[in-house]
Amino acid sequence: MKLYDEGTPAPNPRKVRIYLAEKGIAVPRERVRIMRREHKAPEFLAKNSLGQVPVLELDDGTYLSESVAICRYFEALHFAPPLFGQEAREQALVEMWIRRAEFRYWAPIGMVWRHADPRTAAVVGRQFKEFGEANRKIASDALLWIDRELADGRDYLAGTYSMADIVLLCGIDFGKFIGLDIPKEASRLHAWHGRVSARPSAAA
Amino acid sequence: MKLYDEGTPAPNPRKVRIYLAEKGIAVPRERVRIMRREHKAPEFLAKNSLGQVPVLELDDGTYLSESVAICRYFEALHFAPPLFGQEAREQALVEMWIRRAEFRYWAPIGMVWRHADPRTAAVVGRQFKEFGEANRKIASDALLWIDRELADGRDYLAGTYSMADIVLLCGIDFGKFIGLDIPKEASRLHAWHGRVSARPSAAA
Repeated sequence: MKLYDEGTPAPNPRKVRIYLAEKGIAVPRERVRIMRREHKAPEFLAKNSLGQVPVLELDDGTYLSESVAICRYFEALHFAPPLFGQEAREQALVEMWIRRAEFRYWAPIGMVWRHADPRTAAVVGRQFKEFGEANRKIASDALLWIDRELADGRDYLAGTYSMADIVLLCGIDFGKFIGLDIPKEASRLHAWHGRVSARPSAAA
Repeated sequence: MKLYDEGTPAPNPRKVRIYLAEKGIAVPRERVRIMRREHKAPEFLAKNSLGQVPVLELDDGTYLSESVAICRYFEALHFAPPLFGQEAREQALVEMWIRRAEFRYWAPIGMVWRHADPRTAAVVGRQFKEFGEANRKIASDALLWIDRELADGRDYLAGTYSMADIVLLCGIDFGKFIGLDIPKEASRLHAWHGRVSARPSAAA
């Protein structure tokens, strides 16, 4: 087994690293250097035709991509401590919050990065800058919405700490890298961010 | 338990209906009329603050939203026949293909619908039409890519029929509703579409 990985600030590999740190699972890693475009080289495209990291190579030769799918692979083999929920209701809430974090926050910050950031301009093709810029407010509004959702006083998105928190943390921290931050008035979300960032896994 | 639902062509409620039909699970339903904006009424926003269907109300008063999260709730209670994969590797492949279908196809057709369709213009706020139109090619290219991925001759995205096929089917059929179709040359994907559409569940 081998994990094809990339370092900071790439948010998708980080999700898997935090997940593995929380579970206490060690996996051999090979670095794929995005800045050198190694993820677009033919040898890597044979592993993931989308040319994205992370990728997990299994001993039977299967290549798994998509960070959350890789984590689900480990979850099926090492259930405790559960990070995708314990019983049916909690499993559904974790899935719901993963999706909310992705569709509501990751999607607009991806559009800012793709369409409005000068660092991607050279490699992504045509940018729709005004559209990209408009996504800053969508992303910011999403965080204000999540802050309101936390008004019941719970510590984590789905109740207990879960993959959903990992997904949102990596999204928010990548957002900071591209100039987006948690709105000042989102005090509950700031507290949540402090809480998840204080876990040793957050350094992964 | 109650499922808040909407009829054709809304693709998200359809995913849950197909899933339930495949599993042979009957759930009481209440129709939420999107055309009458019932999903944006205060009573419904109390169930899902995002104002989206479907929503599943549990007997303990929990409201679950996000179609795939609702299906995972049922999967945890009724494993057979598995639609999110049998063992770890298959579970990861199903998750991977759900995500590929969503990020690669649902995301761009959502942008066409949101930014380039006259039917949404009145309710979505500002449209970036040129950006929306540009997503037609992104969506079409995604289907050509999936067609190439099926070149190994397998019948379904993750090997056996799964939630990933349901997600892609509902995306493609919604795409047709907004003027996008499977490219002619994508013969493997056309065959796949015929195969999944022929299942009785597809009428749900």
